[in-house]
Amino acid sequence: MSAPRGRILIDTLVITGVGLIGGSFALALRQANTVRHVIGVGRGRANLDSALRLGVIDEIGEAADAYARADFILVATPVGQMGQVFAAIAPVLRPDAVVTDGGSTKCDVVALARSAFGANIGRFVPAHPIAGAELNGASAARAELYRGKKLVLAALPETDPAAAARVASAWEACGARVFAMTPELHDKTFAAVSHLPHVLAFALVDEIARKPHADLLFQYAASGFRDFTRLAGGSPEMWRDISLANRRALLTEIDEYAARLAEVRSMIDRTDAAALDAVFGNARDARRAWLDAIEAGDKPAGAAAKAP
Amino acid sequence: MSAPRGRILIDTLVITGVGLIGGSFALALRQANTVRHVIGVGRGRANLDSALRLGVIDEIGEAADAYARADFILVATPVGQMGQVFAAIAPVLRPDAVVTDGGSTKCDVVALARSAFGANIGRFVPAHPIAGAELNGASAARAELYRGKKLVLAALPETDPAAAARVASAWEACGARVFAMTPELHDKTFAAVSHLPHVLAFALVDEIARKPHADLLFQYAASGFRDFTRLAGGSPEMWRDISLANRRALLTEIDEYAARLAEVRSMIDRTDAAALDAVFGNARDARRAWLDAIEAGDKPAGAAAKAP
Repeated sequence: MSAPRGRILIDTLVITGVGLIGGSFALALRQANTVRHVIGVGRGRANLDSALRLGVIDEIGEAADAYARADFILVATPVGQMGQVFAAIAPVLRPDAVVTDGGSTKCDVVALARSAFGANIGRFVPAHPIAGAELNGASAARAELYRGKKLVLAALPETDPAAAARVASAWEACGARVFAMTPELHDKTFAAVSHLPHVLAFALVDEIARKPHADLLFQYAASGFRDFTRLAGGSPEMWRDISLANRRALLTEIDEYAARLAEVRSMIDRTDAAALDAVFGNARDARRAWLDAIEAGDKPAGAAAKAP
Repeated sequence: MSAPRGRILIDTLVITGVGLIGGSFALALRQANTVRHVIGVGRGRANLDSALRLGVIDEIGEAADAYARADFILVATPVGQMGQVFAAIAPVLRPDAVVTDGGSTKCDVVALARSAFGANIGRFVPAHPIAGAELNGASAARAELYRGKKLVLAALPETDPAAAARVASAWEACGARVFAMTPELHDKTFAAVSHLPHVLAFALVDEIARKPHADLLFQYAASGFRDFTRLAGGSPEMWRDISLANRRALLTEIDEYAARLAEVRSMIDRTDAAALDAVFGNARDARRAWLDAIEAGDKPAGAAAKAP
């Protein structure tokens, strides 16, 4: 898959949920001259007006009409709304159109899509752009958001290869690097490296805030605490939904982490300096190797293909 | 306590362990023109040579001779070496001299100091500057390190008030804001806001690095993971020592955190969206209030005095 720029890949793009993710996708495709016409669909009229004014979209559409005209639909709503959106798309979807999403979890989105699209599930290409920010809404969108970022394309056995290739090309035109992964492996992976750290950070700040001497504690919390708890600055609603959507994989990660923490607790309790050295040293070295790999520029697709 | 600048507070300053903490203290006092002569003492000759060359110290001293000449001694070695250093200082300490330290834990340092100084314990002023960085050695020292940072002065019932005032004035001359706290409260506070987050971050990276698919996981770890695990970039030796030195308080914090995490796990397990909302929302709001307070500039001493 090369990254075509300046060639029309999409005639009529419909984006449902024109926020940071959806709006940035539209802006990036426009900047690459790969889309002719962009229609925004959504619940919030003020946000759509702002998207139109900012040139993120060309037109504010009504769901059924817009979906019937589209040759490419990105569903960028919260996962909780996707079931309804898919149900509205399914009856009017053009046979040559593709549907994709930007959700942070994949198995639950796939289940919703299977239920809505039925025999047409091959037109749906599950995807997850690994980019985000604390900002929301069309006004936060920017064409550069995806440049150099990863895009997980979580195709199903039934996915039409041409549909998957179109979605991959669109994301590459946005500057993203496309990696393939099954929905199951996606959810397991992000449970470990994203959902678990979020839960740990939320739990820590919550725990400290509940202590009787919380004011004193926060007074002495310094920059290390700020970095550690940055994830607890995320949207409670979004992370509640993700935690529940990826419940099974997340519970496994919490259990494995809690077991390791109990072991470390026991090392401290029995004053086992050598064991603590091993844990802390292993962590420091692994993190350093990871950062070195990032700096060296980790490789796209090929590396992912080797993964289990 | 005002912050006197340009008046000699210290005639002969001895710093044992001329690294980031000790070296920056010397440079800051020099910049404020509040010290006449600085002697560096330590195990690493190359580091002392570098400190002399960089103008951090005026002279490389031999322990007993230097301690006998000092009117102000800062022990800025790792806590594990402080017992020996105190034992070398005690027999030669001038009656008008003060000794202070820069250790990250206080109850254990106080125990070492009591054992070495005996009836002269009133000359020892336990302290902890809340500043640090990933860098080590005299070459990392900089005069600005303590500007605006907190200094916890953990005086004992026996501490000579004049000695405590001298130490406070010296730190204020470095630009630090001095807060008073008992050694016990200090250790309990930092167990919660510093030592626990370090242990949690080390445990997470260690746990992920041990998984069979660790390479894949690190490949998808993004900026949130980097922030969350920044504390796991710290020195394993130093954090092993701190974890063991503050063992009792840290175990309590680990237990309270593990109990809260188990509750959050149960909320996810039973799909209790409302309970998760409460935890995540409470954490997000508490963190936001904390950051707002920092931005507004939290108040020194007075606020600490209200604490339990």
